[in-house]
Amino acid sequence: MKKASKKVNAAIIVIGNEILSGRTQDVNIGSLSKWLNGLGVKVEEARVITDEENKIIKTIHELRKKFNYIFTTGGIGPTHDDITSRSIAKAFNLSYCCHKEAYAMLEKYYGKSKFSEGRKKMAMLPNKASLILNPSSGAPGFIVKNVFCLPGVPSILKSMLGGLNDKIKGGKKILSRTISVQTVESEIAKSLEDVQNQFKKVEIGSYPFFRLGKIGVSIVIRSTEKSKVDVCYKQIVSFLNKKKVYIIYR
Amino acid sequence: MKKASKKVNAAIIVIGNEILSGRTQDVNIGSLSKWLNGLGVKVEEARVITDEENKIIKTIHELRKKFNYIFTTGGIGPTHDDITSRSIAKAFNLSYCCHKEAYAMLEKYYGKSKFSEGRKKMAMLPNKASLILNPSSGAPGFIVKNVFCLPGVPSILKSMLGGLNDKIKGGKKILSRTISVQTVESEIAKSLEDVQNQFKKVEIGSYPFFRLGKIGVSIVIRSTEKSKVDVCYKQIVSFLNKKKVYIIYR
Repeated sequence: MKKASKKVNAAIIVIGNEILSGRTQDVNIGSLSKWLNGLGVKVEEARVITDEENKIIKTIHELRKKFNYIFTTGGIGPTHDDITSRSIAKAFNLSYCCHKEAYAMLEKYYGKSKFSEGRKKMAMLPNKASLILNPSSGAPGFIVKNVFCLPGVPSILKSMLGGLNDKIKGGKKILSRTISVQTVESEIAKSLEDVQNQFKKVEIGSYPFFRLGKIGVSIVIRSTEKSKVDVCYKQIVSFLNKKKVYIIYR
Repeated sequence: MKKASKKVNAAIIVIGNEILSGRTQDVNIGSLSKWLNGLGVKVEEARVITDEENKIIKTIHELRKKFNYIFTTGGIGPTHDDITSRSIAKAFNLSYCCHKEAYAMLEKYYGKSKFSEGRKKMAMLPNKASLILNPSSGAPGFIVKNVFCLPGVPSILKSMLGGLNDKIKGGKKILSRTISVQTVESEIAKSLEDVQNQFKKVEIGSYPFFRLGKIGVSIVIRSTEKSKVDVCYKQIVSFLNKKKVYIIYR
């Protein structure tokens, strides 16, 4: 199982002026991250960029060499502001042309009579791109090398992820345990740091929350190694008990 | 009013493993973007990065020269994973030390007896940083040159923005009008593109939505020039009427 021990990472590029104007709340970073985590892929960066060809090309070039997988969301629809497919074609020096398989797929989905000029644009893709099936609305996403291009509409994006599971080769799964306590961060900061210092490669996060008028902290322990997660967990529960910090759940 | 005509832009850096793991849904990009838009500052990029010193420093260096303002969120609390202040100090070659004004502010907020060692960490800031007042929980944000550092907890972040209004020198305000219609994007794509081609500098976005079982499209027109927004708006409404597309609101 040598393959599963290596680290596999990814970056997400959200393409969309509507996120940067504050008009639309992005939720795709979260959906993609959760799904990738489950496959043993660690998302290490996400960027939200404008609908500009140069910006897309530059970002793709910069990130695709640093990360095993790149996921883009948005910009693959039929309107003038949907420029992801054309930009990806340019980024990889591929022609931007009618993709026969995508054309056939869309024609079947809409029926010949309703397959309008506007809809035909969605068959325009980088030459030889592999398609990502879209069970929700017909228009496929696509893959060029390590770049996976998905739509921006969250429900459609989510419906397409299942079909991708076998195209992602993940590393060891990232395991996590959470302990929620009723205290303030400053009360546990020193003890938590002591545990962190013993286990440099375990990710121990501390996240304050305010719920139903109560102040609390969620402590999240993450690592690919179960034994390390468990030891950290025990040490943290132990110091919490010593400090008489109320544990809401663990 | 020469000043107001120039373009002023910003980038947002969300510092937090919890966003990239999918555990926490970021909402700060949206809050900051809306607020900045209202001040005439266009957010042109957002990045979500890990809690790693090198990554923070590198990202700050890369972005602070490209954009008028940089906003960071997250990592200014009292725990070991809160490393924003120290990283910003390093990025600007400033010492990372006890900030007298912040110390006094925190001591006053908590009272001497409850101003624990853990809490004192929140007074550790880059030397000579200007403070951003925090009406919610005492711990201040801070400013170094064009970099504004804010907390990650959304309600606290929001409570601090009002106090910053006079520290941001915006450009012309970005105006927008939205038309929501009951149609599919492909039906209006060509006509919308024709309008866009006439007004290259106006940002015309098309966003499909699915609400109450109905498919619709929101057309958003954005520009700093009211007259251009209005002309685009008229042209779009005109072609929608010609096509007999049902306008939900405008």
